[in-house]
Amino acid sequence: MGELLWPGDARAGDVLTDEAFLAAMVRVEQAWLDALVGAGLASTPAVLTVPPLRGIADGTESGGNPVIPLVKALRAQSPDVHRGLTSQDVVDTALVLCLRDVVDRVLVDVERAARTLGALAREHRGAVMVGRTLTQYAVPITFGLKAAQWLSGLAEADAGLRRVRAELPVQVGGAAGTLAAVVELGRDREDPVGTAVALVHAVADGLGLGDGTPWHTRGRNPLAATADALVRLADALGHLGADVALLSRPEIGELREGAGGGSSTMPGKANPVLSILLRRHALAAPQLAATLHLAAATYVDERPDGGWHAEWDTLATLGRRSVVAASQAADLVAGLVVDTARMAARVAEAGETLRAEQRSMSGGSSDGDYLGATDLFIDDILGRAARVWENL
Amino acid sequence: MGELLWPGDARAGDVLTDEAFLAAMVRVEQAWLDALVGAGLASTPAVLTVPPLRGIADGTESGGNPVIPLVKALRAQSPDVHRGLTSQDVVDTALVLCLRDVVDRVLVDVERAARTLGALAREHRGAVMVGRTLTQYAVPITFGLKAAQWLSGLAEADAGLRRVRAELPVQVGGAAGTLAAVVELGRDREDPVGTAVALVHAVADGLGLGDGTPWHTRGRNPLAATADALVRLADALGHLGADVALLSRPEIGELREGAGGGSSTMPGKANPVLSILLRRHALAAPQLAATLHLAAATYVDERPDGGWHAEWDTLATLGRRSVVAASQAADLVAGLVVDTARMAARVAEAGETLRAEQRSMSGGSSDGDYLGATDLFIDDILGRAARVWENL
Amino acid sequence: MGELLWPGDARAGDVLTDEAFLAAMVRVEQAWLDALVGAGLASTPAVLTVPPLRGIADGTESGGNPVIPLVKALRAQSPDVHRGLTSQDVVDTALVLCLRDVVDRVLVDVERAARTLGALAREHRGAVMVGRTLTQYAVPITFGLKAAQWLSGLAEADAGLRRVRAELPVQVGGAAGTLAAVVELGRDREDPVGTAVALVHAVADGLGLGDGTPWHTRGRNPLAATADALVRLADALGHLGADVALLSRPEIGELREGAGGGSSTMPGKANPVLSILLRRHALAAPQLAATLHLAAATYVDERPDGGWHAEWDTLATLGRRSVVAASQAADLVAGLVVDTARMAARVAEAGETLRAEQRSMSGGSSDGDYLGATDLFIDDILGRAARVWENL
Amino acid sequence: MGELLWPGDARAGDVLTDEAFLAAMVRVEQAWLDALVGAGLASTPAVLTVPPLRGIADGTESGGNPVIPLVKALRAQSPDVHRGLTSQDVVDTALVLCLRDVVDRVLVDVERAARTLGALAREHRGAVMVGRTLTQYAVPITFGLKAAQWLSGLAEADAGLRRVRAELPVQVGGAAGTLAAVVELGRDREDPVGTAVALVHAVADGLGLGDGTPWHTRGRNPLAATADALVRLADALGHLGADVALLSRPEIGELREGAGGGSSTMPGKANPVLSILLRRHALAAPQLAATLHLAAATYVDERPDGGWHAEWDTLATLGRRSVVAASQAADLVAGLVVDTARMAARVAEAGETLRAEQRSMSGGSSDGDYLGATDLFIDDILGRAARVWENL
Repeated sequence: MGELLWPGDARAGDVLTDEAFLAAMVRVEQAWLDALVGAGLASTPAVLTVPPLRGIADGTESGGNPVIPLVKALRAQSPDVHRGLTSQDVVDTALVLCLRDVVDRVLVDVERAARTLGALAREHRGAVMVGRTLTQYAVPITFGLKAAQWLSGLAEADAGLRRVRAELPVQVGGAAGTLAAVVELGRDREDPVGTAVALVHAVADGLGLGDGTPWHTRGRNPLAATADALVRLADALGHLGADVALLSRPEIGELREGAGGGSSTMPGKANPVLSILLRRHALAAPQLAATLHLAAATYVDERPDGGWHAEWDTLATLGRRSVVAASQAADLVAGLVVDTARMAARVAEAGETLRAEQRSMSGGSSDGDYLGATDLFIDDILGRAARVWENL
Repeated sequence: MGELLWPGDARAGDVLTDEAFLAAMVRVEQAWLDALVGAGLASTPAVLTVPPLRGIADGTESGGNPVIPLVKALRAQSPDVHRGLTSQDVVDTALVLCLRDVVDRVLVDVERAARTLGALAREHRGAVMVGRTLTQYAVPITFGLKAAQWLSGLAEADAGLRRVRAELPVQVGGAAGTLAAVVELGRDREDPVGTAVALVHAVADGLGLGDGTPWHTRGRNPLAATADALVRLADALGHLGADVALLSRPEIGELREGAGGGSSTMPGKANPVLSILLRRHALAAPQLAATLHLAAATYVDERPDGGWHAEWDTLATLGRRSVVAASQAADLVAGLVVDTARMAARVAEAGETLRAEQRSMSGGSSDGDYLGATDLFIDDILGRAARVWENL
Repeated sequence: MGELLWPGDARAGDVLTDEAFLAAMVRVEQAWLDALVGAGLASTPAVLTVPPLRGIADGTESGGNPVIPLVKALRAQSPDVHRGLTSQDVVDTALVLCLRDVVDRVLVDVERAARTLGALAREHRGAVMVGRTLTQYAVPITFGLKAAQWLSGLAEADAGLRRVRAELPVQVGGAAGTLAAVVELGRDREDPVGTAVALVHAVADGLGLGDGTPWHTRGRNPLAATADALVRLADALGHLGADVALLSRPEIGELREGAGGGSSTMPGKANPVLSILLRRHALAAPQLAATLHLAAATYVDERPDGGWHAEWDTLATLGRRSVVAASQAADLVAGLVVDTARMAARVAEAGETLRAEQRSMSGGSSDGDYLGATDLFIDDILGRAARVWENL
Repeated sequence: MGELLWPGDARAGDVLTDEAFLAAMVRVEQAWLDALVGAGLASTPAVLTVPPLRGIADGTESGGNPVIPLVKALRAQSPDVHRGLTSQDVVDTALVLCLRDVVDRVLVDVERAARTLGALAREHRGAVMVGRTLTQYAVPITFGLKAAQWLSGLAEADAGLRRVRAELPVQVGGAAGTLAAVVELGRDREDPVGTAVALVHAVADGLGLGDGTPWHTRGRNPLAATADALVRLADALGHLGADVALLSRPEIGELREGAGGGSSTMPGKANPVLSILLRRHALAAPQLAATLHLAAATYVDERPDGGWHAEWDTLATLGRRSVVAASQAADLVAGLVVDTARMAARVAEAGETLRAEQRSMSGGSSDGDYLGATDLFIDDILGRAARVWENL
């Protein structure tokens, strides 16, 4: 993913770059080495240093994954590195660590966006605007309700992300998911299986991940579920971007991005760039998650012949883009300019059209409040959001 | 979806057919009418009968959805039908009802498959077979562990399905999600908004669904989340199908479907048909969920210009196929023939190859148990499964 | 696909229904039987009648495809039916026949739409309107140019469809694509292989399809290429729908569908239903083609274990929806109401904004014609279209 | 895309990196500047140097694309840079240049693979092996035919790639695709429109691309069609990879990659790494093309609000991966080890099973040649391939 070809990419910093992934793999090997040493199953403790990327990169293709050259490099630091593990243990656990980093960064910006949306919902709870369905005027809503609905989308996405984050596990199973080599390492202990399992616990604790049975073949739930949660965030952000891009059209003009983007040829143009970039992400993200599911669905044996390899870069792309999008969304709402006068003028202009439904309810006589349960819905959404984000 | 073009389609019965969807829409209108009458806001109670499909079908395209002709037909039965609702309320809530039916049917067959897999895991916990990674022999596993891993995939998918099922909500918001018309209906009450909200509660209760604020624009979480959960089941079933299809190959011959499929030209051929049909579903399902996310991501206004309409048939296809696949999977495992002798013979034949990892751990001297933590993992998976499915 | 869940479905008539597919399979068996009889390799000519669908449907799942029960039913009519063929020959060739029918129907409506667009481009070549980029006003265009660009999209899609149609082949290869059984049938002839190949030619001629070597495993080009061509049509139609839906918004009001769709609760609403339904198709179609490519990409052996089966219903869905969409598009443009006065008023209102680019070219002094090469582009597009559709 | 996360990535060199894309954009600006100068419409010729990436990258997000900072940087070299163009002209034409580079590189490796496959088909035209359908033994084929079918898949993909390559066009339309600014530049000429069109021709010639009317909104055919062609290559490569991975399984052992990949924990393991990496690409590629179609399908206005931006990085990913996969495939077939003895042994072992179809044709008496038209098909495929690749 490039900065020119995916504008905003720099917001993701080093998330899921080759460098970050390499460091995560070393972190996994370190945790495992520490656990082995701690259990007395390895005698040469070491503080592993991350080997130069170039060498690992050069050695990656021949074995089909970066762990073989990595282990070769790390064994110069300690001969006990990687003993009992398999490549998939290291790649999968490192991916989990990187995804946790993605989710953590995303959650920060989701919260930032959510707080702004909460404030917008409060501030504009009385700002009447036309509701539109199927492109046409329907009945009035308030901008506060629209902001609250955006917030609600973020709250739902946030809940999904927190759930997958809480369940992110280590993968430690050895060559075929049986821990046989690890049990072998502890063959002189009273309870070699118990010793092996304790090692996995120790690594999970060390890395702050969940443990349990290996999931090397199993529906790929931790990865695919994280992808699904990120896509649901993309859905919510795409919805936000679509609404803002539409309402920023000059013919409508009810919203405006604080700092619109310029043009290479037309001075004075102010494009809703952040909205557009959110929509871009939302158009592309679902197919990335589909690839992860297809990978999972074609898993076979104790490690599959292609499905596993299709996951890594796909997750990296989805992960980086998610970080970018969450950050862009937070900036977008922070700078959003709301033209309540224009909203009100449009409601006035639309006039009776907006009252058609109400008139048909009341037999044509109503002068009642045509905002229905708008305030109640805003309060409900704000209340639920405040249970997630304190003092929102 | 046809019975010739999607073999096994008949297993889904009338799930999400036009007829079933029409009946579900009438059920929604009935619940709403009952609530209106119960609240004294409508005076003509009626037991609505489902109008002939043909007429509704003929009237569907011109307004872009089936609710307009439906309401016209039902108003002949009671003039109060649909008062305060909008098309989207009826379509979305009817979809939710149909999806609940899908999930319920799927859960029955997932349980059926899970119980068989639990029994297989127990029966074959000692059946050693070669573990394979990247197509090649790795280290030994047991067939019991393989069956347990399949079971674990089902248990995870089941948990996801139960979670979405528990949260399936009604959608009642009126023309633009404000309940304005419903509030108008109760304009003579002391608390018109409270009256409106109570109606929504009553409908949710009547249909056994959750309530809350309208979600007509909001990330489309109930629909997309259900689709995600169905796709994760497809992943788990695809994994099962891929393993069985592979292990049924004549060169391997460690598994066999109880009743293999025949050939139009080669007498005596026994193809692993159910496995193949599971794989088919798993290859196609992720893209259907992607469409639902794309729909969600392009939501705009208070009802979007295409995204909403893309959801209906996509959900129907994914829903029916999920019912078919769960049923086929349950049959597949019920009839599965396990050739433990052939498994053992292959382990013997593979010989030292399978011990390479262990030898490298032990310095070449080990005669130890090369199954590692296999039994423990089986027990762990069975234990978790038994918390979902009693007495498994 | 249902008429309620995919509004407009009835436009596809019996295209790729189970009934149509069954008839197509019988047509393939008939052509083969005729060829065998013609070559003196079968002695019992017959005019095959299509067996009842119910029986075929009931027998489909156990073998995983409908050919086994079909052959059983047809052999009661002539014992020589299907001799030398395999299931895949019948299914694939029948799919090709059905897809040809899809393409033929689509081409009719594409032409209908194209002729209307050609007329619109001519009629409105002088109708100045604002050009919009990234949602904002850019520089002026004419509605004639916009209509011409839509036309150009259709012409490109049409060219792709014609190309795949011209290359649609029979699939006749026998059990593993070697024609071994057919060669065996002609074992007493001087040139059994030549005899077999002549049979394939005869069938191809009889069905009006191309022939050549079997393509049962080969990238699945005829099917995937047809899907790609249909998706590119969907792209062009989605673009048309997006533009019309946008320009029909009340704030813009430069276009209007002739017969807008109504509302179940708001009298007087006129929604751009056909545009919306086109957008729906365009959102869903690419993922269907992706499934066909995934099927192709997972082909293995001389017939694969799932990829083949994933194609059938996916093609049926894509095919039917393509017929529906082309028909809806033709109706949409036929009824399109163009409000040139409103276009002109908006240009006037936008004023200097639209001249920013030109001013920056001319140093601010220009009063020149700001329509650039608009007419030339229209003529170019019309000229190319007229080479496809005579007298357009 | 990283070298660790997409093993083999380095094979793509600098294809579609940010650096390559920046250089391509400068090349477009240079060609345009040269044309302006050549036509006497600009007075300051310059040999543009590529500005530092960092500055362009930093300026990209605020306007949503890299052209705004690029133009700013280049105007320091000549004030006439970019006069009359719009951002989309530069981005789209640069993408086309980069895609042409992708296709050219891919075609070289496709030819390399094709020549090897042609040799394999010839060498092994008599090497009988079991044909397999739906995982089970069917009838005999030869490995020569299998190799020829792989070749045929490549030939079809090659034809598609050559077709799109031949039609790759420049995009030059100015702010809204009317060339208005360019016409304005030539306002003092006798034929300003003709002058503008001649400039486009000159640029197209200079870059070796086709010209014609702008396609900035039009179905995005050049980009989506190239993506489709690349995906069809991925299909063919995935099929090759799936067959080789399967036939390399130890239980089958009929093929072997020349240099199998090793293991981080199991000495002596030889995994079919290149096949696995091909399968990986084939699993992921279709969804990338789907994204391009979705982008096209959501085009609106004279430049859309997200669809355009979703294309760039998606094309870069698909393009790079295509280069990698073609190269890996050529290496794979170059090193392929064919064990004809094992193939023959398996045919012997399968015995009568393989003759079931033939026996049913001949009434059980045949001893005939059970290879049918195998040789003829090989010759047909080789003959067609030789028309593409001389002396194949």
